[in-house]
Amino acid sequence: MAGSSYGTLFRVTTWGESHGKAIGAVVDGCPAGLSLCEEDIQPFLDRRRPGQNRYTTARSESDQVEILSGVFEGKTTGTPISMIVYNKDQRSKDYSEIASYYRPGHADFCFDQKYGFRDYRGGGRSSGRETIGRVAAGAIASRVLKELGITLTAYTRSIGPVQCDPGRFQRKYIEKSSLYMPDPEAEEQAVRYLEECMKNRTSSGGVVECRAEHMRPGIGEPVFEKLDAALGKALFSIGAVKAVEIGDGTAVSAALGHENNDQFETGPNGKPQKATNHAGGILGGISDGSDLLVRVSFKPTPSVARPQTALFKDGSCREVSIRGRHDPVIVPRAVVVVESMTAITLLDLLLQNMSATMEHLHRIYS
Amino acid sequence: MAGSSYGTLFRVTTWGESHGKAIGAVVDGCPAGLSLCEEDIQPFLDRRRPGQNRYTTARSESDQVEILSGVFEGKTTGTPISMIVYNKDQRSKDYSEIASYYRPGHADFCFDQKYGFRDYRGGGRSSGRETIGRVAAGAIASRVLKELGITLTAYTRSIGPVQCDPGRFQRKYIEKSSLYMPDPEAEEQAVRYLEECMKNRTSSGGVVECRAEHMRPGIGEPVFEKLDAALGKALFSIGAVKAVEIGDGTAVSAALGHENNDQFETGPNGKPQKATNHAGGILGGISDGSDLLVRVSFKPTPSVARPQTALFKDGSCREVSIRGRHDPVIVPRAVVVVESMTAITLLDLLLQNMSATMEHLHRIYS
Amino acid sequence: MAGSSYGTLFRVTTWGESHGKAIGAVVDGCPAGLSLCEEDIQPFLDRRRPGQNRYTTARSESDQVEILSGVFEGKTTGTPISMIVYNKDQRSKDYSEIASYYRPGHADFCFDQKYGFRDYRGGGRSSGRETIGRVAAGAIASRVLKELGITLTAYTRSIGPVQCDPGRFQRKYIEKSSLYMPDPEAEEQAVRYLEECMKNRTSSGGVVECRAEHMRPGIGEPVFEKLDAALGKALFSIGAVKAVEIGDGTAVSAALGHENNDQFETGPNGKPQKATNHAGGILGGISDGSDLLVRVSFKPTPSVARPQTALFKDGSCREVSIRGRHDPVIVPRAVVVVESMTAITLLDLLLQNMSATMEHLHRIYS
Amino acid sequence: MAGSSYGTLFRVTTWGESHGKAIGAVVDGCPAGLSLCEEDIQPFLDRRRPGQNRYTTARSESDQVEILSGVFEGKTTGTPISMIVYNKDQRSKDYSEIASYYRPGHADFCFDQKYGFRDYRGGGRSSGRETIGRVAAGAIASRVLKELGITLTAYTRSIGPVQCDPGRFQRKYIEKSSLYMPDPEAEEQAVRYLEECMKNRTSSGGVVECRAEHMRPGIGEPVFEKLDAALGKALFSIGAVKAVEIGDGTAVSAALGHENNDQFETGPNGKPQKATNHAGGILGGISDGSDLLVRVSFKPTPSVARPQTALFKDGSCREVSIRGRHDPVIVPRAVVVVESMTAITLLDLLLQNMSATMEHLHRIYS
Repeated sequence: MAGSSYGTLFRVTTWGESHGKAIGAVVDGCPAGLSLCEEDIQPFLDRRRPGQNRYTTARSESDQVEILSGVFEGKTTGTPISMIVYNKDQRSKDYSEIASYYRPGHADFCFDQKYGFRDYRGGGRSSGRETIGRVAAGAIASRVLKELGITLTAYTRSIGPVQCDPGRFQRKYIEKSSLYMPDPEAEEQAVRYLEECMKNRTSSGGVVECRAEHMRPGIGEPVFEKLDAALGKALFSIGAVKAVEIGDGTAVSAALGHENNDQFETGPNGKPQKATNHAGGILGGISDGSDLLVRVSFKPTPSVARPQTALFKDGSCREVSIRGRHDPVIVPRAVVVVESMTAITLLDLLLQNMSATMEHLHRIYS
Repeated sequence: MAGSSYGTLFRVTTWGESHGKAIGAVVDGCPAGLSLCEEDIQPFLDRRRPGQNRYTTARSESDQVEILSGVFEGKTTGTPISMIVYNKDQRSKDYSEIASYYRPGHADFCFDQKYGFRDYRGGGRSSGRETIGRVAAGAIASRVLKELGITLTAYTRSIGPVQCDPGRFQRKYIEKSSLYMPDPEAEEQAVRYLEECMKNRTSSGGVVECRAEHMRPGIGEPVFEKLDAALGKALFSIGAVKAVEIGDGTAVSAALGHENNDQFETGPNGKPQKATNHAGGILGGISDGSDLLVRVSFKPTPSVARPQTALFKDGSCREVSIRGRHDPVIVPRAVVVVESMTAITLLDLLLQNMSATMEHLHRIYS
Repeated sequence: MAGSSYGTLFRVTTWGESHGKAIGAVVDGCPAGLSLCEEDIQPFLDRRRPGQNRYTTARSESDQVEILSGVFEGKTTGTPISMIVYNKDQRSKDYSEIASYYRPGHADFCFDQKYGFRDYRGGGRSSGRETIGRVAAGAIASRVLKELGITLTAYTRSIGPVQCDPGRFQRKYIEKSSLYMPDPEAEEQAVRYLEECMKNRTSSGGVVECRAEHMRPGIGEPVFEKLDAALGKALFSIGAVKAVEIGDGTAVSAALGHENNDQFETGPNGKPQKATNHAGGILGGISDGSDLLVRVSFKPTPSVARPQTALFKDGSCREVSIRGRHDPVIVPRAVVVVESMTAITLLDLLLQNMSATMEHLHRIYS
Repeated sequence: MAGSSYGTLFRVTTWGESHGKAIGAVVDGCPAGLSLCEEDIQPFLDRRRPGQNRYTTARSESDQVEILSGVFEGKTTGTPISMIVYNKDQRSKDYSEIASYYRPGHADFCFDQKYGFRDYRGGGRSSGRETIGRVAAGAIASRVLKELGITLTAYTRSIGPVQCDPGRFQRKYIEKSSLYMPDPEAEEQAVRYLEECMKNRTSSGGVVECRAEHMRPGIGEPVFEKLDAALGKALFSIGAVKAVEIGDGTAVSAALGHENNDQFETGPNGKPQKATNHAGGILGGISDGSDLLVRVSFKPTPSVARPQTALFKDGSCREVSIRGRHDPVIVPRAVVVVESMTAITLLDLLLQNMSATMEHLHRIYS
């Protein structure tokens, strides 16, 4: 139990259900002296907000964040930052029907088996709205990292079978893209693919990629708190994720050792560097200073308009048609969630690394 | 820091370097009253031991485990179980040369950046020998699970491009196979592939799969301590892992919603069941009672006999040839490590789930 | 950092400052299926509320708690219970003066040294109002314990030199007493003592005692998570506490072994029992089933109306007179805080004990 | 469960029973680059070793510590430091008799209630020998603190009713004293008191005090990870402790506010300082830079040679006489344990404080 907290030194606790009064997060351990206000957090929440285009749900939540504690005279005080977002558009009646059965592809059955009953309104705690707290916390973590010069970029790498072409990567296009894709051509294809999905009353999965630049080497703790292990946990904790990859990911299994090893070389500035980055910036669980690269596969939205065979509480299996507002794809809205979880994880391990050496201790305490 | 412990209620702490005096683990939180002796643990260690065939290193360690505490009159007492394996065949001189440079594909550079220096003998703490502690602990976790009827099976699913065919899956062949593969035909091809790798002085990656059967539903905590999140951390914490997949894994990104959803059906015994298991036994981070399925991609062994460009401490990049004993593939020896980390994770969350409901409390305390 | 969470399986995270927008707590890990509503929590908050008699501050806060999540159809769902209490009567101007100096006996100097600056309004995070979150969480923990038959009783044992006489102990009088004392005679003396303190513009300390009855044996984990160790942390985490005692407490240092040992005897019902309870219900860090007894010494309120020598930011030491609303004694309001922290701690270890034996595992999982 | 680890960033895991093969500790999170060898640790263990005078048990253990990992070329590497002490003088037969009953004042009954059975040889895990691991870890923590200039001094403050006189405090006498008392006169009286106890076949309690000098301000995290809360846990986790006090301790309950507050003053060097130190160096849970002062009350050794009424497994209560080697007082041997737990706690919070501010982050990462 007690699974709603994440992180050791930078610790995020989220709370709230889809159709409860509010959703929120408490961020404890944010270093004091960071300039922070609601306007720093809202843009992150706006990126995950529904209703931004026709491929995301029509539910209109303004999702305005309010900071309740931990900031004084515009700066973080080092004490917990409590943030709240009220649920405005709840329409609980939409969901009353699903109380009696377990939907395929959803956590309904699992929650009932675990707890004996469940808050069935909109998925309750397992709703995608739970990520609001993560994103609010991620906005703060990103801000701390940015002060140190570390920047994160996340985007939709593929939707269904439609993949972005690295050769057409346009960083600036990501924010303009309704699907948060960096490749306008791929985006166009993806739009057509999603229209087809909607026509067929089905949904699509996809892949989100996140890159951290201007990394510091030395981040990550050997053995169980490796940077990649921590990222693995953080990213798999996002609903609908079925695979996490670092660097070349699954492709390494078929690679040859001498090719997969990133050789060293003397860079154009005369400084040594890695000639390639198959490792995605992590070796032995510790960052090597080159770009961090993670990739996350999301399954298709389980709520589809087709009839499906559900399990009823009486033990019978019968066809149901799920109504309500659902995304044909959640991937674009998940982009900022992946970025947020990466930022939180990176910051937490960066703080842990501060006590790695006696030399660091002397720098702080003498 | 303090990254060498894993788990909340069933907590494993490992210690030791490749060429130190010994390697060990402390398992704290093992339920009291479990029958346990060294003979229960040794077979797990034997599965990861080098020198079992010509595709694993010739280093001959007997790796005999000794239990130092926590067991009394043949049963666990509920207090920490300390286990030790002495390092016998250390040959430190083999490694003295690599003190002056950072090998491609290894953690050498990262450790030096983090700590200011490193134990360069055989990789020190980042050596594969570190997994001895995990496997000893995993043997105990597996034993507890087995008492509840939950069994784990892990095997090599692919080596390089050679994949096992699910249609030829023979569970009993796994232990006979020098590569821990369940498919004799694939094994034969893999053997030829590895011979080729050795001839070309390179190495191969591969994929390990692990399945848990007779699962209980309800295991895993919502949001951050999801069963898949915990597995993600556990499995990425194994050296050389670059991807973790649950159920259909990366394939879900191109799947369609109505196909990816596991429909319910009435089983042959009249009981409801899932018609498929794309989800790999986890929905919303909680086990659904069907088989748990995880898959892990390992990169090729970074130590290859070819000349490679290393980074020297003076900042120059020069060609080196790494000598010493190295596996052309680590995947077969990693099979038991994947199984061990899965068992530890599963047990820890199974213990956490005991306090999920008031009904459980009444069952224990009244 | 990240010091605002407490507990492993029953985890409480509190947030909020004295003069921020609100104060709150998130309780994660509460077993599902507990009947719970605001009316169960409010009476606990009312016990710590200021303005109840002339010996507590005149600040009039209604301190109404609102549950924001984690409860569905009147029962806890097993997911985080978020609770909020808005700060209504803030009067920040009262405190603006103290921004420039550090008050004796307060944490002002320490916060500035740690964080570089501080929220000086009413003590910020170090205000007594921080305990609102603890008490709200304690109300929930107490309710779970009560379902198992374990009841807690806390009261003021002494104020200044005035001690309650165990021979005059009246449990029912505690709630009637303006000072939460179980002894009407002692209360009368204490009232006179406090009048004297106020006349002399000074303040008084005191002792709170808490007893848990109908305990279960076996609660507490050997070595570092002993029941007394956990209580030690929980109780010292309350502001102004300078001593914690279990059972006979400091008196044991002068006792003789054969007298201090609690002998066993056959009870009136023919069952064995302890003849005495010098140990306060804990041996070797584990509950023995007899009553748990803890005692906490609070220092006098540091805010006194007399002139005192403060440290100014410019390094000078000068006399100041602190204005504002302050209790001549905080002990009566701290009674419910001690009870709450005891309940939270007891419940957390009671949940941890559920996985102590294989026999328990079989009871839940077979 | 899993109660044998302590600390967040500097984490100590101990293992081993009184009559098992060995006792040990794993210290994870020790900063890299600390010069360390067995000779740094052995003197701490020698201070807790039995058989040093006639008031401690005659059992002759050499208790030689061996470092098994985490140190390379004389320096800590940042990875876990595993330490082992073999049990040599076990004489298990001495204890076989007590398998059938529960001794008064011991944890026998509690362990059986918790785990269903127990390792009854010499108290098993609840033996005083468990502290060997703490002391070995404490030696390392003390060494790190000493590098920063922070020094700890612990001593016996009282034995039974015999108290040291602060006016006769001789720091250098502590190590010479067979009872680790700083006051030769009090020591003489205590010796006579203990002779009397032995004659009367009973035992004595006492008080240990520990002082940390050259402290840094800002150590300790608000709310639940206060420095005093952490010390409360650490010190109550030592067997036989029944009270913990900070600064003036229990005396504050009868003090007056204006006297208990430590006023500021301009020191002889023109710098501001506290005029008194009633607070014992902690305000609001954070160190203020003045000396840290803690005090711990130990109960008398429960093993006394007199006949006592024990509880037998058949439910009967009968007189028994406990044989074997037992200290008439454990306090002198506990002095180094108190010092060790204080050092470990202080260091852990000192490491946590490194990430308290953005200014600290910039000092490490730019």
